[in-house]
Amino acid sequence: MIPAVPQHTPSTLLHPPGTIQASELNNHSLEPCFSKARNSFDYLEGLLTADSHVKLVVAMVGLPARGKSYIVKKLKRYLSWLGIHVKIFNVGNKRRVLTSTETPVTNGVQSNQNKDSSSKILHSSSFFDNSNEAAASLRENVAMEVLDDAILWLKGDGQVAIHDATNSTILRRKKIINRIMKEQNVSLLFIESICDNPSLIDSNIQMKLFSPDYTGVDPETALNDFRLRLKSYEDCYEPLGDYEESRKIQYCKLINVGSKIILSNINGFLESQCTFYLTNMNLYPRVIYITRHGQSTDNIAKRIGGNASLSELGVEYSKALANFISNHQPAFYSHVSESKLKSSPISSSLNLSSQVTNGDIQDKPLELLNNNFEIWTSMLTRTVETAHFFRSSNVKIKKYSALNELYSGLCEGMKYSEIKELFPTDFATRTKDKLQTRYPGTNGESYLDVVHRLQHIIIELERINKSVLLISHNAVSRTLLSYFMDISIEKMPFLNVPLGTVFACIPRPFGNDVFAYKWDPETQCFNEIDKSILFEGI
Amino acid sequence: MIPAVPQHTPSTLLHPPGTIQASELNNHSLEPCFSKARNSFDYLEGLLTADSHVKLVVAMVGLPARGKSYIVKKLKRYLSWLGIHVKIFNVGNKRRVLTSTETPVTNGVQSNQNKDSSSKILHSSSFFDNSNEAAASLRENVAMEVLDDAILWLKGDGQVAIHDATNSTILRRKKIINRIMKEQNVSLLFIESICDNPSLIDSNIQMKLFSPDYTGVDPETALNDFRLRLKSYEDCYEPLGDYEESRKIQYCKLINVGSKIILSNINGFLESQCTFYLTNMNLYPRVIYITRHGQSTDNIAKRIGGNASLSELGVEYSKALANFISNHQPAFYSHVSESKLKSSPISSSLNLSSQVTNGDIQDKPLELLNNNFEIWTSMLTRTVETAHFFRSSNVKIKKYSALNELYSGLCEGMKYSEIKELFPTDFATRTKDKLQTRYPGTNGESYLDVVHRLQHIIIELERINKSVLLISHNAVSRTLLSYFMDISIEKMPFLNVPLGTVFACIPRPFGNDVFAYKWDPETQCFNEIDKSILFEGI
Repeated sequence: MIPAVPQHTPSTLLHPPGTIQASELNNHSLEPCFSKARNSFDYLEGLLTADSHVKLVVAMVGLPARGKSYIVKKLKRYLSWLGIHVKIFNVGNKRRVLTSTETPVTNGVQSNQNKDSSSKILHSSSFFDNSNEAAASLRENVAMEVLDDAILWLKGDGQVAIHDATNSTILRRKKIINRIMKEQNVSLLFIESICDNPSLIDSNIQMKLFSPDYTGVDPETALNDFRLRLKSYEDCYEPLGDYEESRKIQYCKLINVGSKIILSNINGFLESQCTFYLTNMNLYPRVIYITRHGQSTDNIAKRIGGNASLSELGVEYSKALANFISNHQPAFYSHVSESKLKSSPISSSLNLSSQVTNGDIQDKPLELLNNNFEIWTSMLTRTVETAHFFRSSNVKIKKYSALNELYSGLCEGMKYSEIKELFPTDFATRTKDKLQTRYPGTNGESYLDVVHRLQHIIIELERINKSVLLISHNAVSRTLLSYFMDISIEKMPFLNVPLGTVFACIPRPFGNDVFAYKWDPETQCFNEIDKSILFEGI
Repeated sequence: MIPAVPQHTPSTLLHPPGTIQASELNNHSLEPCFSKARNSFDYLEGLLTADSHVKLVVAMVGLPARGKSYIVKKLKRYLSWLGIHVKIFNVGNKRRVLTSTETPVTNGVQSNQNKDSSSKILHSSSFFDNSNEAAASLRENVAMEVLDDAILWLKGDGQVAIHDATNSTILRRKKIINRIMKEQNVSLLFIESICDNPSLIDSNIQMKLFSPDYTGVDPETALNDFRLRLKSYEDCYEPLGDYEESRKIQYCKLINVGSKIILSNINGFLESQCTFYLTNMNLYPRVIYITRHGQSTDNIAKRIGGNASLSELGVEYSKALANFISNHQPAFYSHVSESKLKSSPISSSLNLSSQVTNGDIQDKPLELLNNNFEIWTSMLTRTVETAHFFRSSNVKIKKYSALNELYSGLCEGMKYSEIKELFPTDFATRTKDKLQTRYPGTNGESYLDVVHRLQHIIIELERINKSVLLISHNAVSRTLLSYFMDISIEKMPFLNVPLGTVFACIPRPFGNDVFAYKWDPETQCFNEIDKSILFEGI
């Protein structure tokens, strides 16, 4: 049955002339209610649309192997997810590209490595030796060329350019400051990563073995060479401090992955958002599970929105879900502690599927879920009910309205066929631009609106050190998965997130490992499936 | 005309049994959609309701006259506005109460003050002299007694206790840490205020003349005595640092009112929120104007919500508003620069009403509005139209959906009489508890929901250094004014914010000066009225 639409609401949508002196209002003020999110100043966009002349260079500072890449990738992923045009400008890559066909600039400096092996090193430690003036000059030039590239990109539609380099001396940073001061409306934020935790540094150094500089070089030679390179940097390293403070330069210093943070002169909106995000991160091992609620009666009736209860099948899913998670969680944490014993945090796979999907569904008690686990649902009945079978455990279940489904305004509770019939123009607009188009009616939302209200859920997920099961909805799951899997915002509204599927996201040094599990109603088991199911039909 | 309500929506509200196996779901899971905000984990409440066992002591650290009180009051106002039970426990007040009837503990130490006058000082600098062991012991005892009071209060319904004292030595802080470690589930956050800006310190010292310690003492004597007291503190001051860091104690160090910030080991949700708030403050002189949109056609029809356009009267208000602000803003900034020349930032009144309300409404061009001014509206037509007459200037106009009116869900566009008829139970519930009760229908909001979505508007208002005119709605204006005027959250939903009224909030060292102006449609002038109009009818 097609619901009756309150009669006066559509008419106010069309702005009846009423008593308005239309001649006094120009067309700009008569904006349609059914608006594009990006035409608004909605939260973040306050800066990004009207203040689109504000452009930001984030220049990294720090010794090699101090986690700069971790921060750069995380920040890029977060800002991209928010719909900001962000790009990483890596100086090391440019150096390698520029010099790959040239003779290495060794300047006669000998390193104490095996010569045969070191000759394979694109830029051996002698290239980074402070007495090698030719190489130093080349490195300076490359760094500034990359900054020029970044500024050129910002003059187009770029918004945040990340200058990914060590920028470890005041002289270098002075050049960066002077270059940016030549530009109107380009802001600068330095982000420094300092790490004095030996085991973190060691694990970062291990990862350097995979650097293109060491392709085909035996690990021991590469490690020795890298330690020499590090020594050259350490000898002349000047951390952010008085020089920048006296010039009122914005900076953020992250010490040991956020256990200590120093913010200086932060005054921009985007800079404040970036630093708030970075101050809320941690490295605890945990799993972020993302699933939709069990099937609801509205799912059967093919109605969107609303606040229906679960169907019988939905209740079955809820039961199986509690069982699956209460097997998966202990398996994950025992796997983590084994990995720690083996001291192989990087190479060990965290794929637990074989351990957890085929167990007898009744044999693991919920009590195995410990204090490291929480469930977050939306405020809507179907997600609250999906968490029902966890209630016998002591698991904390939290409800957030930020996890509610994309609000379809006047179309709540309708079928797509009804929307097409009642709001043909709106339907067509949304089909063309699903990301930005809001549903008709006050507070009707677009995907971009959902991104913005999920921003603080993401920051909270980054802050806490527990595993979380997020039971939410189709659009919300798409949006969350886009963040964790670094999927472009344009694809976000089209991801395929079927009912009865759990995505397990495991934070790793360079992104998240993601595993997908599909519930089989016949066996009540969850079987691992390829996560590329997300892109089916796109 | 009473709008027809979509037939299936109310039925889903009542959770039709459908195919659910009701026996499998206990009553807890069948929560009504028309819920109380405080029963949810909505954003901040995630910590405050379910995690209500989490209690926080914020212990201040810093020399006298370094802006601790400024921070304490601001933080208390913000947290109270969020609905958190917060209380300041001031050690100086307790010291004065405890010792007011006793002989001063001077221990024979002589100060070099005028004896007649200094004898009036409740606790002269000799009381704070480090060699005065009896007094030192008394001060330590008082500080710990006040902490005991705070912890006792937290064991009741208190949530955040602010220990307002200098806590300037490691020995004192060690005692605080040890005392709090005895309690289960009480967290500790140190907030230190450091200031090395001489003019800021001087202006803070000037304010100390109004301390109860110096009642009836001539200013020069008081100042000399206070400087001696300060010297005693400076001699043994130990800033937050290695001691706290090695013990993983959470701290936030604010240097020169947030121009530099050091965060260490911050890991709690509330602690992260507090520090994010405090890192976004500034001392720039500016005015935050708060007004509702001009009269809309729905106002005439007495319908709530919706998205109507302005009435003829509403258009007139928009015109007059542009004129008023373009007179008030330049007057404010010229007043500020005069005050600076006179070096009397504290005593000078910022009441500009006589200068700005009686000018000829056409004689000041909008161009007088400079880069120090922005307008923020909601996404709704009536607020966007109210900003219309600023368009001829270069003023930046931003639209935020966070400023939209409290969303009345299924009641959007209805008259109160209709709501009472169609949703009698909901209407009664809301009448009883207007703060927490949500309107029926998906995404229907309560005042507490509005507080939470305005949280980031408040932080953005604290961050930027410009004047802002907020053109929004009844509930939103009530909520914003509660923040700026430190009005209790219980009164918030009942404040009287009539159409055609502008509230001008001017940040001051200890809160905001607020002026109210009422538009007179006859003369087109804005006349200053008593701001107590807000409490009419409460």
